[in-house]
Amino acid sequence: MSNISQLTINGERLWQSLMDLAKIGATPKGGNCRLALSPLDGQGRDLVVGWMKAASLEITVDQIGNIFGRRPGRQPSLAPVATGSHIDTQPTGGKFDGCFGVLAGLEVMRTLNEQGVETDAPLELIIWTNEEGTRFVPVMMGSGAFCQVFPLETALSAIDVEGKAVRDELVNIGYAGTAPVPSHKIGKYVEAHIEQGPILEAEDKVIGVVTGSLGLRWYNLTVTGMEAHAGPTPMPLRRDALYAATHLMQAVVEIAQDYAPQGRGTVGVVDVFPASRNVIPGRVSFTVDLRHENADRLADMDARLRQACEALSDGSLCGYRVDVDLHDVQHFSPTPFSSELVDAVSQQAQQRGYSHMPIVTGAGHDAVFMATVTPTAMIFVPCKDGISHNEMEDARPEHLEAGANVLLGTLLAHAGVAHSRHP
Amino acid sequence: MSNISQLTINGERLWQSLMDLAKIGATPKGGNCRLALSPLDGQGRDLVVGWMKAASLEITVDQIGNIFGRRPGRQPSLAPVATGSHIDTQPTGGKFDGCFGVLAGLEVMRTLNEQGVETDAPLELIIWTNEEGTRFVPVMMGSGAFCQVFPLETALSAIDVEGKAVRDELVNIGYAGTAPVPSHKIGKYVEAHIEQGPILEAEDKVIGVVTGSLGLRWYNLTVTGMEAHAGPTPMPLRRDALYAATHLMQAVVEIAQDYAPQGRGTVGVVDVFPASRNVIPGRVSFTVDLRHENADRLADMDARLRQACEALSDGSLCGYRVDVDLHDVQHFSPTPFSSELVDAVSQQAQQRGYSHMPIVTGAGHDAVFMATVTPTAMIFVPCKDGISHNEMEDARPEHLEAGANVLLGTLLAHAGVAHSRHP
Repeated sequence: MSNISQLTINGERLWQSLMDLAKIGATPKGGNCRLALSPLDGQGRDLVVGWMKAASLEITVDQIGNIFGRRPGRQPSLAPVATGSHIDTQPTGGKFDGCFGVLAGLEVMRTLNEQGVETDAPLELIIWTNEEGTRFVPVMMGSGAFCQVFPLETALSAIDVEGKAVRDELVNIGYAGTAPVPSHKIGKYVEAHIEQGPILEAEDKVIGVVTGSLGLRWYNLTVTGMEAHAGPTPMPLRRDALYAATHLMQAVVEIAQDYAPQGRGTVGVVDVFPASRNVIPGRVSFTVDLRHENADRLADMDARLRQACEALSDGSLCGYRVDVDLHDVQHFSPTPFSSELVDAVSQQAQQRGYSHMPIVTGAGHDAVFMATVTPTAMIFVPCKDGISHNEMEDARPEHLEAGANVLLGTLLAHAGVAHSRHP
Repeated sequence: MSNISQLTINGERLWQSLMDLAKIGATPKGGNCRLALSPLDGQGRDLVVGWMKAASLEITVDQIGNIFGRRPGRQPSLAPVATGSHIDTQPTGGKFDGCFGVLAGLEVMRTLNEQGVETDAPLELIIWTNEEGTRFVPVMMGSGAFCQVFPLETALSAIDVEGKAVRDELVNIGYAGTAPVPSHKIGKYVEAHIEQGPILEAEDKVIGVVTGSLGLRWYNLTVTGMEAHAGPTPMPLRRDALYAATHLMQAVVEIAQDYAPQGRGTVGVVDVFPASRNVIPGRVSFTVDLRHENADRLADMDARLRQACEALSDGSLCGYRVDVDLHDVQHFSPTPFSSELVDAVSQQAQQRGYSHMPIVTGAGHDAVFMATVTPTAMIFVPCKDGISHNEMEDARPEHLEAGANVLLGTLLAHAGVAHSRHP
């Protein structure tokens, strides 16, 4: 039997698979466009499913088009230990977001086959449908339906801007499966992914041990003052909605700074009315995105934001009164990952000599939904300049190889290594 | 001969003329829509020109459609002492902006006729073409062409959004005159207008003695940071273009506050890129409008703005570096009005017992262009809540009457009262 702790995947083959998949829907600037359930998504699925079959995985497709490739274990009654991600992309997406997780899992299967490693529990490689959510919402559709975050019917009925339905597009690309949703229980779930942020690069670490996902609160804010002509209206007689609103926009950022390192605060969209060069704005609407990994801290940040709204409203923040309307749009609680699996990822990185650090995911992933139904963890590797959802998205082969090796070790540690066919 | 200093106009007739003109292009909310050179503008012109003819004024129309109604003086060789304004409106404009100045001038003519007052210099009532500039630019088109601020051809060639040219629309409404532009010299010019701002109301004054117009500097600013995903990007690694830009937006207001009472600073339009709820803005563009009545102070404000841009650029204003691009869009110098005429307006208000105060105009007016070629003054009266360019625009009959009386006295003081036919 091979020394399991020394088993490594084939980094060159992993890279080649990533580059081969990236040829489907390649964009001129080096990125990828394979929108969920488009013909190109179908071609991508066909390519990867072909590879999965070549690796002797047993393929199941469920009614929302999720693809499960099972590598049998010696104890078929055990729930599978699974990995996976997605291969749909943003309209101007990169080669690595999602694809790395799927092909790292494939590379693990190929390696185990080559090395004759059997596991007690079955292993499973999953391709989730429509993680990106740019063509059809809800986002993270396949994993969300699987985890019963929303009804299957909601997902199947979703339509794109041309009025095409998920249900029909699944048929068109040949992935309208018959397995129920959810089809079966997953014992454990580990997903590898590029970080999509700048932390690992800034800290010069190879592996991010993901401890959970940030909680999120989305708001719409509207500040109403008094529209007036910019020329004739002296400063003391103004109720400039934009000047007032800038105080809240700054508060959003400064609240997040006060809850470092995991606080996040972003104003992403601003709408000024009437938007004329020589008219003092009478109304400003903007979005607020607050995040934290700790539910209590996130509640504190929420309270601070509401206090700032009151201080702006009563005139104490900018010297005059304005109306402030705060509307709650959406709310996700922080999702801690399985401490047992998180520890296993950390140990694998440590044993294999990869620099590593704990990190939280601020972006949504299929793993965040999976964590609501089964023990889950994620493995992050750096991406260049933290850039993702962009054709410039890039990652280094040695980092991807390291991430796949940690995935290999983590899956084996939990599936139970029963036997090697090449002693 | 009547006691000239006691002559007063007929306030009820002035009000009735305003209400009669306001029936043409009346809007459901009580405002007016007579866009420049539209059929409704033509109907408005016809109504007022009819009144002018009834008041025995000699009508001349020039090539840009400006209408001059002359009341002869005893010394025809003297340049006329003129008054006037415009009767075109904003799309959702009010009954008083412009129309008050024209109909106050008409009321002066009617009163002098009734009282048999002759003047040495001719008097003239002018209706300027397209002051508002909402359908055709340049704004203040008729007076601008008359004062040779831009070539006549520029004005005639201007097209609206439907591609219709000023030249053709003048013909269509019957106001393509033959007099050259400029047709003749104006000796002095006094324009009555609603304030379009809140100062007179706030100070409880009836007459604003306008000392000149604010200088104006328009800029486009662009702040470029780094676009990034709002979730995975920790606060210290961000280069949020919007958070950075809010510091400049606040600086614009605070610079103007530091140059009270005549400083003005406004950010009216804001454009955030990429404008997604969960993306940190990578680029923010916005407009800046700075004004002051004193050219040196306006230059100081400009310097302060440029300093703020540098401080933002080098990271000292918000803690990280961004690119700041400042683009000069337009620049008008402050225009002081004729001190002789300004004093005359003040004396008339004083003699007639109207509360009054010096004021500057922050808005553009035909008088501001006229001041570049001839001694000029303006008379302001309050408007309700300072609101203008709005169907809610309102003014009190007794204030309009007072303004027209001050106009009467000021014109007579400069035209020379030669004779009364009713001794």
